[in-house]
Amino acid sequence: MTSRPAAPPRAYRRLSVEQRKDELLAAARRLFARHAPDAVSLDRVARTAGVSRPLVYRYFPGGKQQLYEAVLRGAAADLERCFTVGASGPLSERLAEVLDRYLTFAVEHGEGFSALLAGGSVVETSRTSAIVDGVRRAAARRVLDHLAVEQPGARLDLTVRTWITSVEAASLIWLDEGRRVPLGELRDWLVDQFIAQLVVTAGRDKETARVLRAAAALEAPGGRVDALVERTLTRMAPATLEL
Amino acid sequence: MTSRPAAPPRAYRRLSVEQRKDELLAAARRLFARHAPDAVSLDRVARTAGVSRPLVYRYFPGGKQQLYEAVLRGAAADLERCFTVGASGPLSERLAEVLDRYLTFAVEHGEGFSALLAGGSVVETSRTSAIVDGVRRAAARRVLDHLAVEQPGARLDLTVRTWITSVEAASLIWLDEGRRVPLGELRDWLVDQFIAQLVVTAGRDKETARVLRAAAALEAPGGRVDALVERTLTRMAPATLEL
Repeated sequence: MTSRPAAPPRAYRRLSVEQRKDELLAAARRLFARHAPDAVSLDRVARTAGVSRPLVYRYFPGGKQQLYEAVLRGAAADLERCFTVGASGPLSERLAEVLDRYLTFAVEHGEGFSALLAGGSVVETSRTSAIVDGVRRAAARRVLDHLAVEQPGARLDLTVRTWITSVEAASLIWLDEGRRVPLGELRDWLVDQFIAQLVVTAGRDKETARVLRAAAALEAPGGRVDALVERTLTRMAPATLEL
Repeated sequence: MTSRPAAPPRAYRRLSVEQRKDELLAAARRLFARHAPDAVSLDRVARTAGVSRPLVYRYFPGGKQQLYEAVLRGAAADLERCFTVGASGPLSERLAEVLDRYLTFAVEHGEGFSALLAGGSVVETSRTSAIVDGVRRAAARRVLDHLAVEQPGARLDLTVRTWITSVEAASLIWLDEGRRVPLGELRDWLVDQFIAQLVVTAGRDKETARVLRAAAALEAPGGRVDALVERTLTRMAPATLEL
């Protein structure tokens, strides 16, 4: 045995309360991103952060539930930032940029992302649902901003919000099935789906038709939307009119 | 006071175990259909069924959670039946029939339907999530049956499953917003959205293009799909090509 005094638990001593809390949160974020919430115990968070279980409780008296909600709020803020892109340029390009970020986020937070959105975990509560709903609402709001619509009517609102859940559902299925389609294709498919959904709604709703025309005026000739129109028209014509 | 003996608790005596259980379930079904699960107590179920709390526990030892799951399984079976319609005639007509039943079910089970699909209740568990997921899977399977597809490729599968969640999300938003659009319009809009989504996927996927052509061949001239094509073509052309 050596006569030197045992090394002090340095990390413990040198960190401020805020730093310590951030470090615990970072450890929890890593774990919740990679595993379903039910598979993340408080002990595991403590171990990953290199601290004791009582210390975790000192910073998060609500235990795992409080940690999970803190991680969730951070992830929600990150997700909401995905939807914030510049307000100029073709709508389809802006949506593609948003989706690129969103899908990258989904890949990086795979397990946790799926567990969160799929629900059914013991740590899901009306409070966590409200956080997730907040992200959906913020995403819909951003999309309406890109469409330059302040107060959407019932039909346009339904179209945008339904598309947001389509994005969510498609990305969950995509992750769950081992990403059988490349990210770029999924992104472009989701942009095309949105445009098609707007077109369908526009067939019944003047507001949506007006918004769609304004958005189409920003599209580059020969760009995404022209390519979609060409692809769908050539498919649609033989599909419904000739056969 | 009269000398006649007190009337026996007739309902209690005359029902068999199965009848009693069915009656309790029926009471629970009515309550869970009209209220969020957190607002339905075991006492309330007992009161509604006119029995004592211990009697409820005799039939459902797992208490409220067990009752809720039993109600949920019944509702899931009802929902799955919505998706079972005859396998002949135009696809768009079959989907419209399915959606008519589904939306009627959603209206009749308003509160409970929303709470269930929106999640976040204390009675939601991985088991209840699995029941709901089972309905989604069964619905996707039925839609694929209508498309005469046994083993869908990744893109067609994604399209069908994403549409199923669109139906779910749109009906939740619709209920939540006080049904601002008539049921028939929502139904037709959802059918049109599915056809548009298939068309978009067909632009990239040969299987979907083939399935869509086969389905289109069953459509009546001047029917739903022709009307959709006409509406969207007339909107799409000025929207993207002329403006």
